Amino acid sequence: MTRIGILGSQGRMGLAIAQAIPASGATLAGGADRGGDAHALAARSDVLVDFSHPSALADHLAAATAAGVPILIGTTGLRPDHHAAIDDAAKGIAVLQTGNTSLGVTLLAALVREAAARLGSDWDIEIVEMHHRHKLDAPSGTALLLGEAAAAGRGVAPADSFVEGRAGLSGARAEDTIGFASLRGGSVVGDHAVILAGEGERIELAHRAEDRAIFARGAVRAAAWLAGRAPGRYAMREVLGL
Amino acid sequence: MTRIGILGSQGRMGLAIAQAIPASGATLAGGADRGGDAHALAARSDVLVDFSHPSALADHLAAATAAGVPILIGTTGLRPDHHAAIDDAAKGIAVLQTGNTSLGVTLLAALVREAAARLGSDWDIEIVEMHHRHKLDAPSGTALLLGEAAAAGRGVAPADSFVEGRAGLSGARAEDTIGFASLRGGSVVGDHAVILAGEGERIELAHRAEDRAIFARGAVRAAAWLAGRAPGRYAMREVLGL
Amino acid sequence: MTRIGILGSQGRMGLAIAQAIPASGATLAGGADRGGDAHALAARSDVLVDFSHPSALADHLAAATAAGVPILIGTTGLRPDHHAAIDDAAKGIAVLQTGNTSLGVTLLAALVREAAARLGSDWDIEIVEMHHRHKLDAPSGTALLLGEAAAAGRGVAPADSFVEGRAGLSGARAEDTIGFASLRGGSVVGDHAVILAGEGERIELAHRAEDRAIFARGAVRAAAWLAGRAPGRYAMREVLGL
Amino acid sequence: MTRIGILGSQGRMGLAIAQAIPASGATLAGGADRGGDAHALAARSDVLVDFSHPSALADHLAAATAAGVPILIGTTGLRPDHHAAIDDAAKGIAVLQTGNTSLGVTLLAALVREAAARLGSDWDIEIVEMHHRHKLDAPSGTALLLGEAAAAGRGVAPADSFVEGRAGLSGARAEDTIGFASLRGGSVVGDHAVILAGEGERIELAHRAEDRAIFARGAVRAAAWLAGRAPGRYAMREVLGL
Repeated sequence: MTRIGILGSQGRMGLAIAQAIPASGATLAGGADRGGDAHALAARSDVLVDFSHPSALADHLAAATAAGVPILIGTTGLRPDHHAAIDDAAKGIAVLQTGNTSLGVTLLAALVREAAARLGSDWDIEIVEMHHRHKLDAPSGTALLLGEAAAAGRGVAPADSFVEGRAGLSGARAEDTIGFASLRGGSVVGDHAVILAGEGERIELAHRAEDRAIFARGAVRAAAWLAGRAPGRYAMREVLGL
Repeated sequence: MTRIGILGSQGRMGLAIAQAIPASGATLAGGADRGGDAHALAARSDVLVDFSHPSALADHLAAATAAGVPILIGTTGLRPDHHAAIDDAAKGIAVLQTGNTSLGVTLLAALVREAAARLGSDWDIEIVEMHHRHKLDAPSGTALLLGEAAAAGRGVAPADSFVEGRAGLSGARAEDTIGFASLRGGSVVGDHAVILAGEGERIELAHRAEDRAIFARGAVRAAAWLAGRAPGRYAMREVLGL
Repeated sequence: MTRIGILGSQGRMGLAIAQAIPASGATLAGGADRGGDAHALAARSDVLVDFSHPSALADHLAAATAAGVPILIGTTGLRPDHHAAIDDAAKGIAVLQTGNTSLGVTLLAALVREAAARLGSDWDIEIVEMHHRHKLDAPSGTALLLGEAAAAGRGVAPADSFVEGRAGLSGARAEDTIGFASLRGGSVVGDHAVILAGEGERIELAHRAEDRAIFARGAVRAAAWLAGRAPGRYAMREVLGL
Repeated sequence: MTRIGILGSQGRMGLAIAQAIPASGATLAGGADRGGDAHALAARSDVLVDFSHPSALADHLAAATAAGVPILIGTTGLRPDHHAAIDDAAKGIAVLQTGNTSLGVTLLAALVREAAARLGSDWDIEIVEMHHRHKLDAPSGTALLLGEAAAAGRGVAPADSFVEGRAGLSGARAEDTIGFASLRGGSVVGDHAVILAGEGERIELAHRAEDRAIFARGAVRAAAWLAGRAPGRYAMREVLGL
């Protein structure tokens, strides 16, 4: 049984992950929070998951490296120096860093990339998402992640192709742009749709999250997959064999 | 058989209306275009439809009034002075002015108004539309028409409640706002959805136009309904008995 | 503060209703279950809600009548003799019996009836629903409720117009039928869409339940509305002023 | 410029293909119909497309083989002996046989297969389609094609897994089944959605045909791709490089 240690165990995701572990066939090695002993936790874990804060990242990577255990990093708000530290740690241990641990979104991003690659520039790409009324920013991080997958498939740069918040006299649609639209309301957990619109036909690739627990379940599955891997930097799509 | 005369008969809508008349059970009285004789056409028509240009409106209203025949006005780009002229003409003849002659959109607007009125401020209202890549402005006129129906039902003013092109750090959603999002791509004739999102549930009221001919068919049905009506200003919803 | 008494307080809906009461501004008068004293509960309640079993209905109606308090009946599996008993009790007290306490579904049914009434027989009506993989029957009770609203609007009898489980060489669609399609999978709480499909355009009226708590919240709101009403039989749509 | 010869040139698809050729950059070599000279047409074509009748298949394969030109076969109603004849011809020339020439549907089928393969048996698969009121059978051929892609990805046999026309006391959903639901109404050209429903999340992969011309355009693109290929039996997905 894979023993999973949780860094940031009292946060929203940490608590959800602890709840998701029993049904997965893994076991909870324990948790550590601000000021807790990450090294001791690493020593009794087969894999660590980190949903804490960027300021603790260096300490968490050091603990994982010292114990020789893989680490999944789901902490948000990472800067380039954090990514450099992750790359460095990945020389000695297996590291999987991701902004979205849902298996459904991970698969969808791969399908979007494939679709954008196979269909030519005469198929326009639009992304629409809906979230609850309390969300503060737009588009959602997941919409941007799907847009990056589309841009990679199409062979364009996000900075050159992304168009957000279309309104007013926007003019005819420019080729090879990727449009984003954001809806807010009620208690929607998160809906995303990528629309590829060609002459006379449309393809729609969508994901609906019904329940925030999917992110915890995906994190547990990814952690179990990561345990025992060779050193290196991994991505969520590899968990699905993509 | 109702005899329908077309003002602007060589425009896109004028031609489509002429095509739609035979299947409707009405008959085509003829057409008049720039420089044509609107008065002569009015004299041999039971009802006129005007899809020409605002600059011809005064002449067309005069022709309809002189002949005592009702007129349906679908011309776009009307200013307040045009509306004043229409109100004036409506003292003597039946006039129906509208920006959308689709029966489906007309019904949808009535349903949206009813839904917005019955559900309280804890149900957020969002409107999303998609049109082909050549459309120049956003949101669509039909989206705004649906937003006005929602605002009327909710008892708020469009100017105070409409939020277009949400992007960036938009902050939490303000109560009693109506959000608009616009997608562009491919050859989409026109899709509109009004979403009312409450705590734990959503209502979606949508219209899909498959074919531009629906606007011509709706105009013909509205014209046939208008023929023989008493003087006054009418609206599309009355054609459906709403 | 309206005091709500729960008959069947230990069932799934009874527990959910007790949870929903505080946020509603009402107060919980108490609960009674199999063998409990419904009369004593009625005496200290302003309104009763019954989500127990048809076999207890006669006793519950007697308790409400004796205390002169209104009762909302959400018990399922009622037979014609139960409905006769409800009609009888409604001579002395206010009674609201319903198979669905969601405000969203209640509103949707009213919109569907209106749409079916306004659009003629050249608009086909189809209903599609999706529920979780454990649901045993198809179509859902809510889909049938929406179909009855459509049939009432169209002026046809459900028995003559309902078509379920279309498959094989079904032949061209017969006019004035109402088709039902059922999808099952995952953990879907309940999605319903009514599609009115005309020549060249479609209207889609849909409801998505994200959370089963909406049924409890709707029941509490309906109970608060029912408290203090004159004797008679009421329907959910009246709670929304429809 | 690729010269395309049309067998069955006066049929609905044959006429649509002739219309689609100029915009594609190819050129029309000519057409042959019942009793026409397929051999002469083959001699002046770089590739043949056959949308005629199974009874003419043997003659058309012989003509293509004699002239050494590839042939795209879109004729429907093929039996096993026709497929054997196609396999035989494919030893000498390039042959692409398909039941659906839409590029969008071809891509969607590939995405569905991938999704079904990557997501385990705890993700249920459902397929829903809508077509116009005149369609005689259900599910549509395209829905079955998508179901076959899902079955191949999941590693199950269509005969064991397909469930059509769910209605009545169907019982809880059986694992590894693929459900089909069919809606009919109005003038819908063809909408298809494949839903993969897991615990707490859903993926929806959909195609909307707005216009029957997409099938002709896809056939022309596939024919141009087929011209000059080595002998063998090809599939639509190869046209997209899948």
